[in-house]
Amino acid sequence: MEPTLIYDTTFRDGTQGENINFSPREKLKIAKRLDDIGIHYIEGGFAGSNPRDMAFFELARNEHFHTARLAAFGSTRKPGVRVEKDENIKAVIEARTPVAAIVGKSWTLHVEQIMGNTLDENLAMITESVAFLKARDREVIFDAEHFFDGYKSNKPYALETLRAAMAGGGDFLVLCDTNGGTLPFEVETIFQDVRQKLFPDTSQRVKLGIHTHNDCGLALANAIAAVRAGAVMVQGTINGYGERCGNMDITSAIPVLCTKMSRPCIPLENLSKLKNLSRFVSETANMIPLNSRPFVGRSAFAHKGGMHVNAIMKMPEAYEHMKPEVVGNKRRVLVSDLSGKSNIEFKAKELGVSLGENGVDSRKIVDEIKQLEQDGYQFDVAEGSLKILLEKLAGQFNPLFELETFRVTTEKSKDMPNAAHATIKVSVGDHEEITAAEGSGPVSALDNALRKVLENFYPELKSMQLIDFKVRVIDGREGTAARVRVLIESRDQDEIWSTVGVSEDVLEASWQALADSFQYKLSKSIQP
Amino acid sequence: MEPTLIYDTTFRDGTQGENINFSPREKLKIAKRLDDIGIHYIEGGFAGSNPRDMAFFELARNEHFHTARLAAFGSTRKPGVRVEKDENIKAVIEARTPVAAIVGKSWTLHVEQIMGNTLDENLAMITESVAFLKARDREVIFDAEHFFDGYKSNKPYALETLRAAMAGGGDFLVLCDTNGGTLPFEVETIFQDVRQKLFPDTSQRVKLGIHTHNDCGLALANAIAAVRAGAVMVQGTINGYGERCGNMDITSAIPVLCTKMSRPCIPLENLSKLKNLSRFVSETANMIPLNSRPFVGRSAFAHKGGMHVNAIMKMPEAYEHMKPEVVGNKRRVLVSDLSGKSNIEFKAKELGVSLGENGVDSRKIVDEIKQLEQDGYQFDVAEGSLKILLEKLAGQFNPLFELETFRVTTEKSKDMPNAAHATIKVSVGDHEEITAAEGSGPVSALDNALRKVLENFYPELKSMQLIDFKVRVIDGREGTAARVRVLIESRDQDEIWSTVGVSEDVLEASWQALADSFQYKLSKSIQP
Repeated sequence: MEPTLIYDTTFRDGTQGENINFSPREKLKIAKRLDDIGIHYIEGGFAGSNPRDMAFFELARNEHFHTARLAAFGSTRKPGVRVEKDENIKAVIEARTPVAAIVGKSWTLHVEQIMGNTLDENLAMITESVAFLKARDREVIFDAEHFFDGYKSNKPYALETLRAAMAGGGDFLVLCDTNGGTLPFEVETIFQDVRQKLFPDTSQRVKLGIHTHNDCGLALANAIAAVRAGAVMVQGTINGYGERCGNMDITSAIPVLCTKMSRPCIPLENLSKLKNLSRFVSETANMIPLNSRPFVGRSAFAHKGGMHVNAIMKMPEAYEHMKPEVVGNKRRVLVSDLSGKSNIEFKAKELGVSLGENGVDSRKIVDEIKQLEQDGYQFDVAEGSLKILLEKLAGQFNPLFELETFRVTTEKSKDMPNAAHATIKVSVGDHEEITAAEGSGPVSALDNALRKVLENFYPELKSMQLIDFKVRVIDGREGTAARVRVLIESRDQDEIWSTVGVSEDVLEASWQALADSFQYKLSKSIQP
Repeated sequence: MEPTLIYDTTFRDGTQGENINFSPREKLKIAKRLDDIGIHYIEGGFAGSNPRDMAFFELARNEHFHTARLAAFGSTRKPGVRVEKDENIKAVIEARTPVAAIVGKSWTLHVEQIMGNTLDENLAMITESVAFLKARDREVIFDAEHFFDGYKSNKPYALETLRAAMAGGGDFLVLCDTNGGTLPFEVETIFQDVRQKLFPDTSQRVKLGIHTHNDCGLALANAIAAVRAGAVMVQGTINGYGERCGNMDITSAIPVLCTKMSRPCIPLENLSKLKNLSRFVSETANMIPLNSRPFVGRSAFAHKGGMHVNAIMKMPEAYEHMKPEVVGNKRRVLVSDLSGKSNIEFKAKELGVSLGENGVDSRKIVDEIKQLEQDGYQFDVAEGSLKILLEKLAGQFNPLFELETFRVTTEKSKDMPNAAHATIKVSVGDHEEITAAEGSGPVSALDNALRKVLENFYPELKSMQLIDFKVRVIDGREGTAARVRVLIESRDQDEIWSTVGVSEDVLEASWQALADSFQYKLSKSIQP
């Protein structure tokens, strides 16, 4: 059976979603993860539409991808412009990706009434744009925009646009349900008809793909229908991010294709990375992960209501449509990533905290961590704080400074900017120091004051830098009194580490994460 | 064409979702809305499972429903118990609803291995339970639990369970995909086979229904497949609430059935109540509405990206799969950094700010907004702030309060929690007021103080509530001095609005968003 290829458009169509955006460096990190799991194509962005997309293509050029082929997106040349002079086509070339994805019009309504173009010129635009990119050694994917609407309103012309892309030598023809209003049985029928009309002699060389939107809640069903009718490429985004109701969700499509339909797709052993991939992208986008998301959501395998835990444990297949571990998720009768004695013991060893030998009760530690994770801490992304917590619980914590007091004041007068200053008193052994500092806000003032006072004792802090500071509201429903989680990333010349704090008070949460970060750094330089 | 009947199980299966629960009075309010829109069946709860469900049945008994028939849910009698003595069956009778929904086992694995029952006794339980309820004048709906899994593992027995319900005189046989792992093409094939096997002579008297879960993201697609294969009842919940990944979402199913498949279902003129129904249920459940929810979500008809507003206005069908008004939703044009003059003019009109007539230069306004968006403001998701900004730029801003000063202090001592308090002085016209408030953090203290001082002037603020508070670091690489964007969502009884603030200082950013939110609310109540 021919493999189904996954084409990821998180960076382009995904960022059309409200609040979704990534810096070029964030894109690179995500692209490495997409490659790692075995995604076949990664669309890097809309070449020429903005400088940030081009910056990513430049960054990505120096990276080696194992599986994924990088695609630059653009549209067919403009009407009446020679293809080699077209700014947009030039930008696609300048992206220097092995793959070019070119969108063109398939619906006469768009060609004539929206663009004011002629039907013939539109066909010429498609053929010439595809041919131009083919001549420059690109693998060319033609996205037939509004294909299903076009097919319904003028079937012969919609098919002509596909033939135009074939005439240009296109490698893939992707039928797009751009407005998201098409139903699965329509997709299936139309795909079958397209195959019959385009490849009557069945010696099909050009491959078909499907691009769907979730406006009717049917993006995935439409993709599946297309695959059953011969599509070998499905386009979508991680977590289904995208404009309006989103795009097809790759994190659902992959397990459905691999486990339910037994199609060759990504390597089966990589399926277990799916949940973490989903989480990594939502964290990077700073979007609250959707608990009910199929396969990868926190509740996807959660059991509640009249269910007998023993029966589930004895015979999970009676209550679960698949093993949660297959997609890297887990059953939630017990919460937390770190639940289980052996996990904690393994992790402690990894972080250099010895539990077993000291007669420490790992079971109690597991319970403590579970409680904290229920309160909103997240230790899987804050190992600096986890290390300190384990040391504390194992009675091996060596505090390298202690807070006596701090006070942070922010003042504002009329339209003047805020003024923030902090005073802080800490003790190290028997010595106390007090100092004050300003900052561009209360957290920054506190950070500056802590750094200033500790540098009196520990000059090595000069090599330490904060590189990231993320605030996430854990439960938005309480308005400004909601609990927030602060994640801080710090580094020195050797290492990057993360720490976490949780509180209803952003400053208290920041303090926890800051204090952990400084403690982590100092304990490194003291230990061998 | 036979109508497709909607069976709502929000009160039973919906409340299996994490965090979803309703009081009996809340259920009654929702039931009235379900009836009002034309839902055919409302499942009131699991009779006998808890007193709250019975309390609702009692309340509902005194109400008149126009369309909806009320159903009590229960399971078949216990093994070895005489049906008239079975506690659960008695509870269904005591609910005194016109409809009884009875769930029974269809999968031999559950009958034998989980329940330790015999296959024959299970069939007897089904027939006797259905017959007993029929003899008491109930319309009886038989829910065949795990039907699709049962069919796949032992098809003859799964069919026997349906025949057992028919033998008891059941009115509806509902095939349940309880674990949510079945795919649409399987549902279609199995439905067709079931019809052929059960009703070989086509004089079908018993009706078929479908009950699906969203574990594969396919609950709606499965329901549609069943309808095409002869199901006349679809079961689901409002907003798809339900355990794990949720149930089939009725707010998607209704518009798909009515507008895309042209099936008789609820009265067409009631479709426009759908968005408000969805919102009413999410508000009652105190769940944040999902913006990307098909048809009824806030973003479902939002346009962003290189889209030309003029073209959308001229020809919405080119960009929308249906008119948003049909489901009571509306088009939202998101102003983004790609915006031009016409976008702004359109948006201003929508927000009630008149630009053109006052000789205001829209070009200058566009430049200003672009600059602010480069600085990190995001007006496409903060229309409250956009309105205020447009008023300011157009010289139409009427400040309903002015900040004189505020001071927020946070203090911490050793391991004690932070203490935050704020003093604030504002003026309204010639009057000044000063007050102070505490909070669970600096932002919360400031919010409380502002609310307290303004309520002296504007008592209508009591109806305003903050519902979401989001902090995002725009560029994390500056550590704690990075700029942050604060997005606040507020609401009163009529509306939800969003406001934004940006600063290196989280408190300054929060102030901007808070001040805009209060100004927005106050200007609403002053304008006609």
